[in-house]
Amino acid sequence: MQEPVHDVFARQKFMATIGARLLRAESGECDVELRFSESIGQQTGVVHAGAIAAIADSACGGAALTMWPEGSDVVSIEFKLNLLAPARGEKLVAKAQVLRAGKTITVCRADVFAGDVLVATMLGTMMRR
Amino acid sequence: MQEPVHDVFARQKFMATIGARLLRAESGECDVELRFSESIGQQTGVVHAGAIAAIADSACGGAALTMWPEGSDVVSIEFKLNLLAPARGEKLVAKAQVLRAGKTITVCRADVFAGDVLVATMLGTMMRR
Amino acid sequence: MQEPVHDVFARQKFMATIGARLLRAESGECDVELRFSESIGQQTGVVHAGAIAAIADSACGGAALTMWPEGSDVVSIEFKLNLLAPARGEKLVAKAQVLRAGKTITVCRADVFAGDVLVATMLGTMMRR
Amino acid sequence: MQEPVHDVFARQKFMATIGARLLRAESGECDVELRFSESIGQQTGVVHAGAIAAIADSACGGAALTMWPEGSDVVSIEFKLNLLAPARGEKLVAKAQVLRAGKTITVCRADVFAGDVLVATMLGTMMRR
Repeated sequence: MQEPVHDVFARQKFMATIGARLLRAESGECDVELRFSESIGQQTGVVHAGAIAAIADSACGGAALTMWPEGSDVVSIEFKLNLLAPARGEKLVAKAQVLRAGKTITVCRADVFAGDVLVATMLGTMMRR
Repeated sequence: MQEPVHDVFARQKFMATIGARLLRAESGECDVELRFSESIGQQTGVVHAGAIAAIADSACGGAALTMWPEGSDVVSIEFKLNLLAPARGEKLVAKAQVLRAGKTITVCRADVFAGDVLVATMLGTMMRR
Repeated sequence: MQEPVHDVFARQKFMATIGARLLRAESGECDVELRFSESIGQQTGVVHAGAIAAIADSACGGAALTMWPEGSDVVSIEFKLNLLAPARGEKLVAKAQVLRAGKTITVCRADVFAGDVLVATMLGTMMRR
Repeated sequence: MQEPVHDVFARQKFMATIGARLLRAESGECDVELRFSESIGQQTGVVHAGAIAAIADSACGGAALTMWPEGSDVVSIEFKLNLLAPARGEKLVAKAQVLRAGKTITVCRADVFAGDVLVATMLGTMMRR
């Protein structure tokens, strides 16, 4: 696991709050896991779209960071999330990949899975700082 | 405050987890407040984009619900969020409004403010269930 | 009308192809008109979403250009378009405004009207070159 | 090539206007080709984002149609397009695939290529009518 991404992730208190952890980050890819708990649910008990957005966004940021020089930080300019299926199960995994790496702007996609089921997909734009 | 939206909101455990509460919901509008705490921060200490997405999405859902018959529930099909300024300060308020109300599909916009500063804006699509 | 935006617009051959013209561009706002013709229709005869996206995108680019130093050019990083009502009538007008002007990245919203009817809305991210 | 998609496409006059044609549509996939001409350019001569959006959107609609019962028509609810590289070359091909097929709502992704280069990617939501 690349140290800088690990460091950035560790400083994202919101990830600990929702029960997310970094699985890996390298070569333009980053996976983030979210363990299910009632505290991240919406009104029907499945995971709230905001929690899904959170791990997909952090995974996109992590993937982007792997492509930039050491010492870079990342900020999200924007993202779009489509919810495809109810997010149920013991855990979710957001798997992000860089689609286009630029010096300043990097575009990423993140697919979020509950087991084998694609429950959401994000397309997002990250900026280096 | 319309009871159904209040009920739906109260069942969204994630809102309590992040420190959000429903301010109002009526006539195609819905406001949700998020009190700042370290637990919702990202690596630089400002509010994580996922937490901003969460309140904007819940506000969009609440705004949509005010336009549908009693007993309706809401699910987010998709949303896009642009982050416009660092989300700092004591609290954020997401102010959602319905742009187009349909029987099944309703499109909403939510602007998220830190005081007078527009820190983010969402455009989202909600479906009635 | 600010000359630089007028110049940029005049070089966008696609605008002439679809029957669009620049109405105004100043102070972070830009309006683009699209005259209806069968050649821009989709299968039911209303205006194709791609033509709506084209004028909304050009309007966003024009609005962004008004906020940057002379000699700047603009490229779209991304946009999202929601179609809200069938785009019928003699003409459409896309009205763009800057939501956040940055030195490199500027975020714009464009509402597209057929008369008084809001038929579409775009949220887009523009980059200065 | 599935006849219904072919029929719907043939009635999209905008596709002929910009120089696009349907390559194939089957099993949740649809490819649309756009031949380059000056008439679809933006100010620097590359293909205007609106023309790219048009073929990606039509490809998403075609892909969605292959998953619905005969006699269905399709309308775009929304789409988001990221522009990843300048759209140069003799032709572009938008390759759409269904990510989630529903009875009413179907979500599609379309990647747009100039040769081997990914120049844009769309994530869109289609509704059956």
